[in-house]
Amino acid sequence: MAADPRFHPAAGPFALAQVAEAGAAQLRGDGERRFRDVAPLDAAGPEEVAFLDGRRNLKAMQASRAGAVVLRPEFAEAVPEGCAALVSPAPPLAFARIAALFHPAPLLVPGIHPTASVAPDAVLGEGSEVGPYAVVGAGAVLGARAYVGPHAVVGSGCVFGDDARIHAHASAICCLAGHRVTLHHGARVGQEGFGFAPTPEGRFVTIPQLGRVVLGDEVEIGANACVDRGALGDTVLGAGTRLDNLVQIGHNVVTGRGCVIVAQVGISGSTRLGDHVTIAGQAGLTGHLNIGSRARIGAQAGVQSDIPPGQDVTGSPAMPVKDALRAALYLRKVGARRAAEAGSLQDRADQKGPPGGRSGQTD
Amino acid sequence: MAADPRFHPAAGPFALAQVAEAGAAQLRGDGERRFRDVAPLDAAGPEEVAFLDGRRNLKAMQASRAGAVVLRPEFAEAVPEGCAALVSPAPPLAFARIAALFHPAPLLVPGIHPTASVAPDAVLGEGSEVGPYAVVGAGAVLGARAYVGPHAVVGSGCVFGDDARIHAHASAICCLAGHRVTLHHGARVGQEGFGFAPTPEGRFVTIPQLGRVVLGDEVEIGANACVDRGALGDTVLGAGTRLDNLVQIGHNVVTGRGCVIVAQVGISGSTRLGDHVTIAGQAGLTGHLNIGSRARIGAQAGVQSDIPPGQDVTGSPAMPVKDALRAALYLRKVGARRAAEAGSLQDRADQKGPPGGRSGQTD
Amino acid sequence: MAADPRFHPAAGPFALAQVAEAGAAQLRGDGERRFRDVAPLDAAGPEEVAFLDGRRNLKAMQASRAGAVVLRPEFAEAVPEGCAALVSPAPPLAFARIAALFHPAPLLVPGIHPTASVAPDAVLGEGSEVGPYAVVGAGAVLGARAYVGPHAVVGSGCVFGDDARIHAHASAICCLAGHRVTLHHGARVGQEGFGFAPTPEGRFVTIPQLGRVVLGDEVEIGANACVDRGALGDTVLGAGTRLDNLVQIGHNVVTGRGCVIVAQVGISGSTRLGDHVTIAGQAGLTGHLNIGSRARIGAQAGVQSDIPPGQDVTGSPAMPVKDALRAALYLRKVGARRAAEAGSLQDRADQKGPPGGRSGQTD
Repeated sequence: MAADPRFHPAAGPFALAQVAEAGAAQLRGDGERRFRDVAPLDAAGPEEVAFLDGRRNLKAMQASRAGAVVLRPEFAEAVPEGCAALVSPAPPLAFARIAALFHPAPLLVPGIHPTASVAPDAVLGEGSEVGPYAVVGAGAVLGARAYVGPHAVVGSGCVFGDDARIHAHASAICCLAGHRVTLHHGARVGQEGFGFAPTPEGRFVTIPQLGRVVLGDEVEIGANACVDRGALGDTVLGAGTRLDNLVQIGHNVVTGRGCVIVAQVGISGSTRLGDHVTIAGQAGLTGHLNIGSRARIGAQAGVQSDIPPGQDVTGSPAMPVKDALRAALYLRKVGARRAAEAGSLQDRADQKGPPGGRSGQTD
Repeated sequence: MAADPRFHPAAGPFALAQVAEAGAAQLRGDGERRFRDVAPLDAAGPEEVAFLDGRRNLKAMQASRAGAVVLRPEFAEAVPEGCAALVSPAPPLAFARIAALFHPAPLLVPGIHPTASVAPDAVLGEGSEVGPYAVVGAGAVLGARAYVGPHAVVGSGCVFGDDARIHAHASAICCLAGHRVTLHHGARVGQEGFGFAPTPEGRFVTIPQLGRVVLGDEVEIGANACVDRGALGDTVLGAGTRLDNLVQIGHNVVTGRGCVIVAQVGISGSTRLGDHVTIAGQAGLTGHLNIGSRARIGAQAGVQSDIPPGQDVTGSPAMPVKDALRAALYLRKVGARRAAEAGSLQDRADQKGPPGGRSGQTD
Repeated sequence: MAADPRFHPAAGPFALAQVAEAGAAQLRGDGERRFRDVAPLDAAGPEEVAFLDGRRNLKAMQASRAGAVVLRPEFAEAVPEGCAALVSPAPPLAFARIAALFHPAPLLVPGIHPTASVAPDAVLGEGSEVGPYAVVGAGAVLGARAYVGPHAVVGSGCVFGDDARIHAHASAICCLAGHRVTLHHGARVGQEGFGFAPTPEGRFVTIPQLGRVVLGDEVEIGANACVDRGALGDTVLGAGTRLDNLVQIGHNVVTGRGCVIVAQVGISGSTRLGDHVTIAGQAGLTGHLNIGSRARIGAQAGVQSDIPPGQDVTGSPAMPVKDALRAALYLRKVGARRAAEAGSLQDRADQKGPPGGRSGQTD
């Protein structure tokens, strides 16, 4: 089953040799066979290219009718009869490139929709597309081939490099961005962060938030995610850093390059990440921390202190992963044993007649 | 105090017999009494119908001036003097239907607002209402009585059955939906999910996300919640499944029917839920899991492994609820005991003069 | 480095005496020196005012070139040579006021954008500004100097006092608000909450949500945060209460004054907060709880029972902070010790030849 052409029309077809070349994969099969699309293993047909995502899907591959499979060398011999192998040391990357061959990014339709509101002194680079009801503010500058989706807002003075993708309903204010930056649907960049001071009477006075958001090349901000501008100085996301949906980035957070921040993570103000930090879903980091490069933070972790480069932590409060796993195992055993004890005490009490006490009071 | 007529105008008044019939409730009282609205117990007057939400509100009911109360049989005798009883085995359901009698869903105002942007080949069913600045893309199809709110976006090729409600600021792309599907304000459906592969140099290459979102009949997506389309194949929410606000659904999640997913839950890619799974607020599920039908997952749980049908789990990592409760009790006792010990050591040290060491070093 | 004038143009310059007066700070220095802006300590120059945010930044101050620093009395002697001290018992508040002197809130541009859709019977107070594609519904009333940003939606019948700020993409329906209320970008106020009843066949019937949202003076709702209207009766946020981004407030939550609710917190329906409750990031509260005034709830806490006034809790389930810290320390020690034991067992097994068993089975 190929991708739904209503949403993902396919280019091609392509000869398998061309497919292999796109994926920088070594071909074991007939390079002249023609292919029409990519598909998952369990639905792919003889004109479709699938992808083996690890040992766990070996059975699925052996049952598959896919005409070709992208896979690591150690699995190449396991392909079914008649199926070509596209051998790569990095199947996800190879598959990404092959999928992009069949489904190149849709061409922009250059032009400004008649309903869009673009300030007279805003600058849009060559080949840009601005959709219905989009707003581009005074003095904003977008580079070549910018895509500004329906209802998107690019605030006054904002600057984006080339190939910006600012999807429907996203907003960017007080923002400077490099090339190939993406704001997904409903992303919120540059708004006022959470800064205020209490008066003696208990009222709150907002502290003007006078910084900006600076996004490096290829930064991506997920749907409905929020990146607050700096209070003084900037909030900075380094080149290649990607935020998943519903992430919260507080004012003056600074990250290095290539950080991966999964859905619903929250990073409090002024915390700094090195390069290639990975933070799994729903984790939280308090403020003013330093997280070293290549640190990895587990799902739902609660990080309250600095993490050295390369360390893996999880748990709340976070601790080294090995310790956290042991602690969790221990707690689980304690809970299971005590639940079982309470259960048999209750059973014995039930057998003896009127209960001597509420179960659970052995604790 | 009736509902504010500026926001919730009331139909009626209605005779109590008709109210009872709407709620499929057994009436104990004068069926000809007239009623004007529903109201909460503590504010209802003699022309208003209230609702007893369990034993905890018995006192409130006995002090109430409500003219009628929907309640379970065992509480029927407890109604105050002059108050009619509307007896039902399922008071919430009965009350839902009675409230809907007084406050039917507002009628649509069929037509397309002059500022809406509807593609020439988009199809809108009979009686549909499209609001200001809404966008309906090329080839999109909505059934009868569709409501598309201000600024909502229905992307090219999307298909909705009858009675769609797509509220202000919501967006749906790459989406096929059944009947009576609701996207609440700011919901994000069908956008590109979080999929990319690293190059050897540490850059990220997006993996084209070539699937769709498929929503069964009566699915509801909460305000600002996000449902990513599939990477290959679809993200599927089964009929009747409801997502609360700010939920995150990753690519290729598949659920059965009637799942209940409370606010701020996150479900990672490719995890599958059976029917009638309940997930309480802020829980998180890792990817590629199988959650059996009727499993119940507690608030803030961290689920990292499969759950069999009908099991109740909580905690992070998640474990059977009974075990989790015991583990939490244990941890709380340990903490309280050690905090008390540290406190009395500090007291004794203070009494003895110069401290022998910082408190806390007994650990 | 002053604030970027593209985004944060500066008023002034001002004499230091005037700066001190704005901040209600005691000046130690030459009141006639002229200043142009505020800046952070590490970037400020001789014409800029910085701010000492506690002892941790003392070194930064001593290396700073700032012309003046706002600080507490005990640090006044530590200012570098040539730097004026602006002494205040409450530096954040003083600095907020000084920053606002240099960066007063931008003046509105009164008027209704030609693309805005304002109902004929909507009332906008004097000096209001309504931006492109904003929607103001039938019978809505906004006071003087309202700001309604691009694409914002103010629903029929809503009432706001003076000085409302409803930022781009925000939506408010079924809402009554006092003066100086702010909805940040993408905030969602007043939509239908998560209320439904199951039928015997397992379908869900929505319970009509017939209440409103009531926001006191100076309430602020963060970007993409959600506040559901009441089911019966209202959801109420007391004067001065501030919600950070991506917060979820369930139907019929009621708070007192001046509550601080940090990013990604979730509060379930019908829970009540007193005055000046502080809830740190990602915490969750179940429904129908009572949280006493001045209680403080820690980051990621899971609150499942009432909290008395003034108590500090954290952890999930939440417990008094001192107990939680001890419990966490204990768990961390257990985990570290067991991880170390498993490590040395593995080492010894490796030394002895064929492993006697998988490490970890000592558990």
